[in-house]
Amino acid sequence: MNDKNLNLEDVGREIYELISELYPIHRSITGPGVRATLAILKRHIPLEVHEVPTGTQVFDWQVPMEWHIRDAYVKDRNGTRIIDYRKSNLHVVNYSVPVKATMSWQKLKGGHLFTLPQYPDWVPYRVSHFQESWGFCMSHNQFIELEARGNQDYEVCIDATFKRGSLTYGELCLPGKSRDEVLISCHVCHPSLANDGLSGVAVAAYLAKHLHSLDRRYTYRFIFVPATIGAITWLSLNEAKVINITHGLILPLLGDPGKSTYKKSRRGDAEIDRIVAHVLRHSGADYALIDFEPYGYDERQFCSPGFNLPVGCLMRTPGGLYPEYHSSADNLELVQPQYLADSWAKCVAIADILENNRLYVNQNPKCEPQLGRRGLYRAFGTELRKEDTQRAIQWVLNFSDGKHTLLDIAERSGLNFNMLKQATDLLLQYDLVKEFPKPSA
Amino acid sequence: MNDKNLNLEDVGREIYELISELYPIHRSITGPGVRATLAILKRHIPLEVHEVPTGTQVFDWQVPMEWHIRDAYVKDRNGTRIIDYRKSNLHVVNYSVPVKATMSWQKLKGGHLFTLPQYPDWVPYRVSHFQESWGFCMSHNQFIELEARGNQDYEVCIDATFKRGSLTYGELCLPGKSRDEVLISCHVCHPSLANDGLSGVAVAAYLAKHLHSLDRRYTYRFIFVPATIGAITWLSLNEAKVINITHGLILPLLGDPGKSTYKKSRRGDAEIDRIVAHVLRHSGADYALIDFEPYGYDERQFCSPGFNLPVGCLMRTPGGLYPEYHSSADNLELVQPQYLADSWAKCVAIADILENNRLYVNQNPKCEPQLGRRGLYRAFGTELRKEDTQRAIQWVLNFSDGKHTLLDIAERSGLNFNMLKQATDLLLQYDLVKEFPKPSA
Amino acid sequence: MNDKNLNLEDVGREIYELISELYPIHRSITGPGVRATLAILKRHIPLEVHEVPTGTQVFDWQVPMEWHIRDAYVKDRNGTRIIDYRKSNLHVVNYSVPVKATMSWQKLKGGHLFTLPQYPDWVPYRVSHFQESWGFCMSHNQFIELEARGNQDYEVCIDATFKRGSLTYGELCLPGKSRDEVLISCHVCHPSLANDGLSGVAVAAYLAKHLHSLDRRYTYRFIFVPATIGAITWLSLNEAKVINITHGLILPLLGDPGKSTYKKSRRGDAEIDRIVAHVLRHSGADYALIDFEPYGYDERQFCSPGFNLPVGCLMRTPGGLYPEYHSSADNLELVQPQYLADSWAKCVAIADILENNRLYVNQNPKCEPQLGRRGLYRAFGTELRKEDTQRAIQWVLNFSDGKHTLLDIAERSGLNFNMLKQATDLLLQYDLVKEFPKPSA
Repeated sequence: MNDKNLNLEDVGREIYELISELYPIHRSITGPGVRATLAILKRHIPLEVHEVPTGTQVFDWQVPMEWHIRDAYVKDRNGTRIIDYRKSNLHVVNYSVPVKATMSWQKLKGGHLFTLPQYPDWVPYRVSHFQESWGFCMSHNQFIELEARGNQDYEVCIDATFKRGSLTYGELCLPGKSRDEVLISCHVCHPSLANDGLSGVAVAAYLAKHLHSLDRRYTYRFIFVPATIGAITWLSLNEAKVINITHGLILPLLGDPGKSTYKKSRRGDAEIDRIVAHVLRHSGADYALIDFEPYGYDERQFCSPGFNLPVGCLMRTPGGLYPEYHSSADNLELVQPQYLADSWAKCVAIADILENNRLYVNQNPKCEPQLGRRGLYRAFGTELRKEDTQRAIQWVLNFSDGKHTLLDIAERSGLNFNMLKQATDLLLQYDLVKEFPKPSA
Repeated sequence: MNDKNLNLEDVGREIYELISELYPIHRSITGPGVRATLAILKRHIPLEVHEVPTGTQVFDWQVPMEWHIRDAYVKDRNGTRIIDYRKSNLHVVNYSVPVKATMSWQKLKGGHLFTLPQYPDWVPYRVSHFQESWGFCMSHNQFIELEARGNQDYEVCIDATFKRGSLTYGELCLPGKSRDEVLISCHVCHPSLANDGLSGVAVAAYLAKHLHSLDRRYTYRFIFVPATIGAITWLSLNEAKVINITHGLILPLLGDPGKSTYKKSRRGDAEIDRIVAHVLRHSGADYALIDFEPYGYDERQFCSPGFNLPVGCLMRTPGGLYPEYHSSADNLELVQPQYLADSWAKCVAIADILENNRLYVNQNPKCEPQLGRRGLYRAFGTELRKEDTQRAIQWVLNFSDGKHTLLDIAERSGLNFNMLKQATDLLLQYDLVKEFPKPSA
Repeated sequence: MNDKNLNLEDVGREIYELISELYPIHRSITGPGVRATLAILKRHIPLEVHEVPTGTQVFDWQVPMEWHIRDAYVKDRNGTRIIDYRKSNLHVVNYSVPVKATMSWQKLKGGHLFTLPQYPDWVPYRVSHFQESWGFCMSHNQFIELEARGNQDYEVCIDATFKRGSLTYGELCLPGKSRDEVLISCHVCHPSLANDGLSGVAVAAYLAKHLHSLDRRYTYRFIFVPATIGAITWLSLNEAKVINITHGLILPLLGDPGKSTYKKSRRGDAEIDRIVAHVLRHSGADYALIDFEPYGYDERQFCSPGFNLPVGCLMRTPGGLYPEYHSSADNLELVQPQYLADSWAKCVAIADILENNRLYVNQNPKCEPQLGRRGLYRAFGTELRKEDTQRAIQWVLNFSDGKHTLLDIAERSGLNFNMLKQATDLLLQYDLVKEFPKPSA
């Protein structure tokens, strides 16, 4: 596939297809699900897969055991599987300890069954990481039906084992001219949820594809990690690389119909924060900017006080604010190609500004240069367009004083970054501005 | 009385009783009224009483003479006291020079009678400090009645003397671990006005009682001074101590039904300004924050440019904005126990944050520590409460970077200071944060 | 004429008369029109007239040739002048190259005729500086009428010549105690347009008259230049003087009925920006403040990045936002004496604050001085007035700490600068404040 020929509709469809392929896999924070996921991604982008042994100390944590599950069910006295892991991997609480027992309904429902009374058709997604327990998730409708059957006995089985193994993550580094890195992180630990995790994974993969073919100023590092423990593991093992991360984005939820939402980095005014705000402001669609809070996705780790990296989080509806969140309704009907394409296009626009947000210096800083003599009043098409580019030229000339980057000028003028970039390209042709080294943030 | 057993209703009632006892005393800027007031306060708190001789130079001023008044009246031709100082000390203009004369109504009303035409039942409160004059205050209704009698002669008497003596003020210092001081100042120079002066005096006395029983970080210094000249005198005689004042509050008007109002220090962003704003914001009631202006109460002196101390002014309705201000209607009906109790509770909350606004440092600053392992996910009661404290823990961990005090974190998170304090106490138990020396402001 | 006796009505009338005298002259960026204009101004103020030879390099530009026009017309086949330069100098595109030809209507209207379809009665104002072309302007009504006549032949004549000569500008320097300069610039290149150019020229002349008679702190430099090329020429030839320009105003449009509008300097918070904002805020009339943009009038040159001077632009309705802009309707009916007088009064008020915005230091910085002893409580008339000046005195005393100028105090207090100035004059009499050297911006 040649990335240049992609149109947005095609990209949306392809991202959706990748999610569809990844969706059925039963992922957890460790184990075969993550490996299967990364294997599929490797067919799209040249990921390096890393395995970090169980027990490895990663800051305050240890890499956990691998969880292997073969089967899980609850059978009634007729031997019918009334809850069946084979129908949906959400039915078993993720990372449950094994159990094989016959127990009464009273005992079973006392702490081992989870439902969503507000959405009685949906099965919730529940986890039990880092604590020894087990449980099943089911629709509330089914729960009510079973409740009506009275206190029968049920055969309960979770055929799972924990074994020493490793934590698996994928990494792709696309080197650029500069050692400064843009970190893109998404999580690969959620089972059959389409938006939470997979939408970010698939958009990130297609962003990597796009950037792969370009001549890059920055180095881009994509990591596909289990949430929390994966980010902690990566940071612990790559502390020496952290100094290079000058911009970063967490991409968790990018396929639902909600408006784009950007949660700023802990710093609040990092270049990435301003770039994403610019892209959303000029997107022509509704959007939200929210301040950093120390809960959410892996920005919690990258923005912990010992790192305080300029890493924000781009999503559509934030986790917990759309009803389908952490339930069986976060599925292939919720995510749609057009929302994925829109999210991907915003990521591409962000990368484009990152690449092009440079500092220029007006070569005739005293008074305006005579643009007419150079034909710079006649360089464009329609009247209106001409006036706009004319104004962009004047903004770039006036503020290219060695202190204002193109993004600074875009913010001050209210003009779109792209228009200022076009004006700058024209001015560069006539030697009216020159690029100037940009001081590091 | 054991302060620990006080409930708010009791405190309100007791403060009200103290005001009731102080109310009838005829106070002026010097003389026996102030002494009688301080003598009553001494039964509640171990005040030290200071006497500063008449004529003492205090910056640009001199300590004035003492004003002693024995009687004052206006008698009509029947010998009836139509204005009688014995009925209300507001009837005589405070600090009037003595007069003993018979004069016509025309002459008397020409510059010697004061009324409130807008509130014809009320007697105004007027003073004549630092200028030689005399006068009487009366209700406008009575004035109209006398006007109707025509130009009769009246016997006018103010039996007062000025003598060299001293200016009296009370001071209480409650030492704390630190030499840094919190200054609390209120004025004891107003005669029978319940809100203006006495409400602040009585709330301050009960705040001192409360703090007396505590283990204090700060030293608290309470001063009970005549307004303006008393504050100037104190500052002049205590210049060497001023360096220790790191926070301060003027408490003038705390018993009326109006909303709490805080006038910021001249600095505008002192810690005391931010603390009072936090307490009012989280009080659940309406409130107002106003910027410093160089008129009002004794903040004028403490915030004069040569001192510029971080001293704000906590009141309910600002002086001049409630109709009863400086009139006989500023009485024991205007101030009420519940408003006094509410003001006292806010002062206690302010002192509590002052004591506890410390700086902590996360001991695991790189990524989040594993809270689950330490049982910090299970440390609390109901679901909702648990989540809130959980969030407070995450805020404290993320922002305890040696730069953010608990108040900074409260402001950034929008959470209540107390909840962050509880979270911090828990984190201290697990050695997850440590206290860090706070740089001085 | 003695400036002191001027009342606003007289000033407005006189300014209007000056505009009326200048209005008929056919100006361009060079040539006899500018010279005739400056000659008239010289009768009012002692202008120095400068001539800069054609071809002089001024930064990226060259001083252009002079344009001399004797006649211009379009005649129909009957020999009737259907467009006649003698009726209005707007009929010929300014700086048109000469032409003498007979041509068809089709050819004539193809790029050589300009109208305003939105305002069919008005003749537009068009220029062709720095490009070789020619054209005529006419009302759209007349254009429609001629269009109806069909494709007749017309005799077209522009009897103009370009010759080497000079660019002419006027300059007036009123020296003050300080070498720091206030620059006032207006443009003298527009032909018969009353508001655009002439209103600013005439108001500036009367401002110069006013300042001429005063004892000045600042040096005031007025320049009367052709727009763009004139400002560039002046800056190029006077680079060494630029360091002295500490404040400046461009005055382009001051006679229309619109509200006063101030476009801030590129710095945005220069003293001139704050002073004009103060004057407009306290003017009692509606006004607008707008941020700097790198298009408009000669602020483009003074605020180019190599100079970045604190020069703003005071106007009424901005160019392009009033319908009469650049048309025959920008005439002596659009500008009116009362608007000119109002603009002039604002310029005078701005100069007054510039002159008086000084730094004072309270000589009794610790606590308030005893104002009563000095009679400063009785220094004024009515009660209300007294209180206001009283407050102004307290503001000046409290904030005269060597850090706040009178304008800073005006901004912080919300009080009018003049009231603070009066209070300061009183305090100076009593040695309560002293002037302090003001650090340069």
